[in-house]
Amino acid sequence: MAPLQNARVLFNAIPADYPIPGETTVYDTSQTMDVENVSLNGGILIKVLLLSVDPYLRGRLRAAEIESYMPAFTLGQPLHSHGIGVVLRSEFPGVEAGTHVFGILLHQEYMIVASLESASAPGVAIANLEVIERNPRLDWSVYLGAAGMPGQTAFMGWWEYSEAKKVAFISTGAGSVGALVIQIAKQDGLKVIASAGTEEKVKFMKELGADVAFNYKSTDVRTVLAKEGPIDIFWDNVGGDTLDAAMEFANNHARFIECGQISGYNHGFQPMKNPGLIFGKCLHIHGFLLGYLRHKHLTAFSTEVMPKLISGELKYREDITRGLDKVGDVILAVQKGENTGKAIVRVADE
Amino acid sequence: MAPLQNARVLFNAIPADYPIPGETTVYDTSQTMDVENVSLNGGILIKVLLLSVDPYLRGRLRAAEIESYMPAFTLGQPLHSHGIGVVLRSEFPGVEAGTHVFGILLHQEYMIVASLESASAPGVAIANLEVIERNPRLDWSVYLGAAGMPGQTAFMGWWEYSEAKKVAFISTGAGSVGALVIQIAKQDGLKVIASAGTEEKVKFMKELGADVAFNYKSTDVRTVLAKEGPIDIFWDNVGGDTLDAAMEFANNHARFIECGQISGYNHGFQPMKNPGLIFGKCLHIHGFLLGYLRHKHLTAFSTEVMPKLISGELKYREDITRGLDKVGDVILAVQKGENTGKAIVRVADE
Repeated sequence: MAPLQNARVLFNAIPADYPIPGETTVYDTSQTMDVENVSLNGGILIKVLLLSVDPYLRGRLRAAEIESYMPAFTLGQPLHSHGIGVVLRSEFPGVEAGTHVFGILLHQEYMIVASLESASAPGVAIANLEVIERNPRLDWSVYLGAAGMPGQTAFMGWWEYSEAKKVAFISTGAGSVGALVIQIAKQDGLKVIASAGTEEKVKFMKELGADVAFNYKSTDVRTVLAKEGPIDIFWDNVGGDTLDAAMEFANNHARFIECGQISGYNHGFQPMKNPGLIFGKCLHIHGFLLGYLRHKHLTAFSTEVMPKLISGELKYREDITRGLDKVGDVILAVQKGENTGKAIVRVADE
Repeated sequence: MAPLQNARVLFNAIPADYPIPGETTVYDTSQTMDVENVSLNGGILIKVLLLSVDPYLRGRLRAAEIESYMPAFTLGQPLHSHGIGVVLRSEFPGVEAGTHVFGILLHQEYMIVASLESASAPGVAIANLEVIERNPRLDWSVYLGAAGMPGQTAFMGWWEYSEAKKVAFISTGAGSVGALVIQIAKQDGLKVIASAGTEEKVKFMKELGADVAFNYKSTDVRTVLAKEGPIDIFWDNVGGDTLDAAMEFANNHARFIECGQISGYNHGFQPMKNPGLIFGKCLHIHGFLLGYLRHKHLTAFSTEVMPKLISGELKYREDITRGLDKVGDVILAVQKGENTGKAIVRVADE
């Protein structure tokens, strides 16, 4: 078999504002790979099937000298994010062709992962990839969404920090994290106020059980919170003025779970208007990234959450786009909130 | 005996910036009280001995319609704050003349507390005052400072939220709270960075054991934190730019104990520059007011802290001003950080 095209999505230019497909990122078809004969040196050859596109990716499209919680992408090199791939060939003991792997994958069609001495458990982890098995009732894509990083973020952040009381306000309630947080909060018996940016998302949030669902583009958040609050929990995926409003309408001792602040990713973070409310209302504000909580809660996620995803008791939506060349468009859509459900790019079928 | 002058300090005008003695507050000598014959109606007559002047009082010198965590003072009426008084006469069962009481006292020389049906334990609590006994090795003033609200704030806030690691940064480290926090942090084995606004306070903080003590008026806080940090704990009594700087030089998972933000009390709170760091660094920011923690930790304070105050192992400073007519000046001095140690007004000797 002749060498195959090995298309890639490269980081091409640092965006000043929203990332521009074809400029910030470029789809490159200049490389090929002889998948049958390429040397593996003890590693494995992976065909990339699915790639996750998440809001945080915007933060990695920056100049390398700016420090942040994750390293910047390298100009001229492929992006990478959570993904699912299938092993085409393997020289790594215990990993067979046909095995599926989950982890940080390159945004390209085929990739070779070198064998690592440091693999935590031979046959299980290679270069931070995990061998993954699929429940027959769940698509692979679910392992990038409700059963993956966003789903674990929702449950583990809630378990760790919510100390649930009466009223929760959940921003981006139709997103891959927020949609699950709505359902968790309802299971915990809370009144749930949820916001999103389209009427379709508002409808979805109501289906998920939100007591009050509103479109923040057409309805003033302060008007809603004045009527339906005060709030005991704010799950923040937005930041900016929504965070200020949540502080204004928070009860004493309210808990703020700072999962993200997408309002600041493209045009810079807006200052917090009145930090004096933090001690005035005895607010507890918890920033968190899943990585630090995952190990602690992984067993509980497997035993308590996975069965409800498999049975369909927990609902989620996915927004799957076909084609590696669409990565730049999906990144932009996620930043603008145009996706409905977990954004995933399908690179290839098996 | 003829009626005695019963001087008072009245809230006279809402300040726009710093509180102005003689304008924001006025010393009024128009009233008298016949302390021997005045009718008590089952209550007690108290001679006010000591009044505490704390940073938070500024927040009560505001328009009544502005909501905050404590009610505004009433224009034309006396201020009130924590104080120590002695009972001159009593019609309340179990309370004798000569008994000392602690609690919120009016800023006037004599006051009558009515008997309350709701007194939680007759002979112990009257109108939220507590009968208090003094350890012979401690002055009464200590019960307004290191053994009182500021001391309890320091210990209880630390116990509840610090989860101490390696490096703590304590603002207003020479204040009635900060000076104790420095000592707690050192006892817990941390490296302590502490700031204050005069050279004398810097000297005091070094005596308390601070590893790095600096004058924020002459030394740039970012230069210090860049060299001596990053920090794991920030004890905040200042807010504003110091809070922004602490966030910039915080480790991942650092804890911010928001005890107060005096930089915002007189000219308004400055926005928090980069709230995106909250999730980016997984910061945990805890606002707290002593009232909510006091009950939980009071036994530990009595058994663990009081013996060290009595033995002299724990150090503290007091700044006692004589004369009820000086209340306005002391309030202003506290807002400007001109006091050295716990600010107290001595209204009378016994």
